[in-house]
Amino acid sequence: MPTVKLISEEEASGKVLEIFEDIKKTKQIDFVPNVWKALATNPDYLEITWKKLKAIMAPGKLDMLTKEIIALAVSITNGCTYCINSHTAAVKKLGLDNEALGELIAVVDLFNGMNRVANAYQIEPDVKPKEE
Amino acid sequence: MPTVKLISEEEASGKVLEIFEDIKKTKQIDFVPNVWKALATNPDYLEITWKKLKAIMAPGKLDMLTKEIIALAVSITNGCTYCINSHTAAVKKLGLDNEALGELIAVVDLFNGMNRVANAYQIEPDVKPKEE
Amino acid sequence: MPTVKLISEEEASGKVLEIFEDIKKTKQIDFVPNVWKALATNPDYLEITWKKLKAIMAPGKLDMLTKEIIALAVSITNGCTYCINSHTAAVKKLGLDNEALGELIAVVDLFNGMNRVANAYQIEPDVKPKEE
Amino acid sequence: MPTVKLISEEEASGKVLEIFEDIKKTKQIDFVPNVWKALATNPDYLEITWKKLKAIMAPGKLDMLTKEIIALAVSITNGCTYCINSHTAAVKKLGLDNEALGELIAVVDLFNGMNRVANAYQIEPDVKPKEE
Amino acid sequence: MPTVKLISEEEASGKVLEIFEDIKKTKQIDFVPNVWKALATNPDYLEITWKKLKAIMAPGKLDMLTKEIIALAVSITNGCTYCINSHTAAVKKLGLDNEALGELIAVVDLFNGMNRVANAYQIEPDVKPKEE
Amino acid sequence: MPTVKLISEEEASGKVLEIFEDIKKTKQIDFVPNVWKALATNPDYLEITWKKLKAIMAPGKLDMLTKEIIALAVSITNGCTYCINSHTAAVKKLGLDNEALGELIAVVDLFNGMNRVANAYQIEPDVKPKEE
Repeated sequence: MPTVKLISEEEASGKVLEIFEDIKKTKQIDFVPNVWKALATNPDYLEITWKKLKAIMAPGKLDMLTKEIIALAVSITNGCTYCINSHTAAVKKLGLDNEALGELIAVVDLFNGMNRVANAYQIEPDVKPKEE
Repeated sequence: MPTVKLISEEEASGKVLEIFEDIKKTKQIDFVPNVWKALATNPDYLEITWKKLKAIMAPGKLDMLTKEIIALAVSITNGCTYCINSHTAAVKKLGLDNEALGELIAVVDLFNGMNRVANAYQIEPDVKPKEE
Repeated sequence: MPTVKLISEEEASGKVLEIFEDIKKTKQIDFVPNVWKALATNPDYLEITWKKLKAIMAPGKLDMLTKEIIALAVSITNGCTYCINSHTAAVKKLGLDNEALGELIAVVDLFNGMNRVANAYQIEPDVKPKEE
Repeated sequence: MPTVKLISEEEASGKVLEIFEDIKKTKQIDFVPNVWKALATNPDYLEITWKKLKAIMAPGKLDMLTKEIIALAVSITNGCTYCINSHTAAVKKLGLDNEALGELIAVVDLFNGMNRVANAYQIEPDVKPKEE
Repeated sequence: MPTVKLISEEEASGKVLEIFEDIKKTKQIDFVPNVWKALATNPDYLEITWKKLKAIMAPGKLDMLTKEIIALAVSITNGCTYCINSHTAAVKKLGLDNEALGELIAVVDLFNGMNRVANAYQIEPDVKPKEE
Repeated sequence: MPTVKLISEEEASGKVLEIFEDIKKTKQIDFVPNVWKALATNPDYLEITWKKLKAIMAPGKLDMLTKEIIALAVSITNGCTYCINSHTAAVKKLGLDNEALGELIAVVDLFNGMNRVANAYQIEPDVKPKEE
């Protein structure tokens, strides 16, 4: 159960309402996800968070699907239930089928393990990363 | 400093040597990365780990670059220095430039933060993930 | 569902009962939180844990609210549901309103992200921390 | 060693230079921390990150020292070396002495442990968080 | 709620069915745990994961109980609910009583805390690990 | 580099000196590990931490080696360099050879991966943990 009262679309007004509308339009969904309704208790923080997310998730050198795949890999690694559900829905909407999702999970599985092997043996870098 | 003596290519023999050769050929590199030299202290574990990695990282529905991007996102989230250096080198070799790397890092930054917002407010899923 | 049977206040006796009473008195609450009822299955461990917590959470150079804020920031970062609920209740009882809670969460969000930026770019310290 | 070439103050121009100046002025320091020099490889991401940090770290209902304490608690929990050094320097500059720092660390120690006790016993929340 | 449709024992055929039978036989249980029913959506990944687990969890220099204790300590540290339930059941089946479980949890509690003390003070290793 | 000046054995006096002596005697080593020299900046916190560690690490239903194995598994999972070095030295001193260490690491690798598989698929517990 959320630790603050969520601001519903009906209660929203002014800046909060504008951002709620922009969220639905940008994400092409017909509801405001709960995390934004919670952030709306601090309108300035809602605004700066939404602006940052909108800028970062816009297609650039990486396309939207790749960005959502990264978001899902991070959320699985951190074990955030809300986020896993949300980004799993997003990658499926963008065309990833269950088999491809299984490949994504296999890579996340593998390197969460390998990260610990490198920790355990206190492995030193093979080569210095090349600066450009 | 590593917590076990690494097995060098010169010392390797039998199954270990075969796997070392396969690692260099598969990854198209001219040295055996340190993590595999450490794993070589337990040849059976080396074998099963390499086989799993080789199978999972082969191109499938997701291509190799996407898989390396996931590996890097996981390693950054876990803060594994060896792994970050190794997968940064890999994504650059596969064509990601510094600007695209910056986009990858921006998404990792964003969702490591958002994961905690969802935790903090104990947000409940918006919609049930659709099974197929 | 808990993995051990919790020891209720009715079942408690001896050292466990004394500690249960001390917990309620020290925290000024009228129930024993579930985590202590679980620890009561190992009375010595219950005792040493409660003594450590009581000593550390007593006001010192940092006041109780600051200490509870730290506890909440840690619990959010680790994604511990029980702990987030418990420490959110504690900071509210000590006077933090929803707006201040939003500021706390914003800082936790920000630096869980920035921690990964520093990881990703393998940033070296700017200055050596000054010893005193 | 950083995985990208840091942008020095001498190399900075345009938007990047403006932000570098604002960072030094806002933080009242005479150098640009390395993390910002790395972010400068993606000027738009530098800008949005700095704007978010500046807005969130400004004194509000929580003062600056409390916000830096939260930042340090998060960084210790995540084990980010660069961030621990940076925020330890910041809390000392804002007046926290070594004894108070020891108290902060004690609370971080305690609840990283208690978070796992709650996980281990699968403890359920005591009371529903009160919405307001 | 799972994000993919689990493959039931009734639906399983071919390689998946063989592995399901082997899982039940090897673990001496009369049902297939849900995690394997999810992995069955990618049969090759199911196979390689099961083979790796079977090889690693077989008694070697460390016995099965010690291996399950490690698995539980890792799962508690990561806060994985499914895994904590599963490995708690396993260690109990192998003979660990609630008092011993309490000792295990106490050690996990202690060092999740001590790990952060070492992080916080940026402690350097006392001695170089001895290579052999 | 440590963020506080470590208290050397020569500088220690009173309670701190007594605890330093007890640490060396209990752990059967001829030096005081750096983490305790850092904790000595807050003598009360040093005392309560040492007492808790001494009580928890004493042989009980689990022997000392099993407890050190758990400590190492936790430290690898969290990626704490100081702690990995320290607990690797401890398990080797208690008789674990490099092959057995490799088995320990294999289990830690495996379940850090499997924890994420369970997260990713949002797997629900198979059976309710049996209370006793």
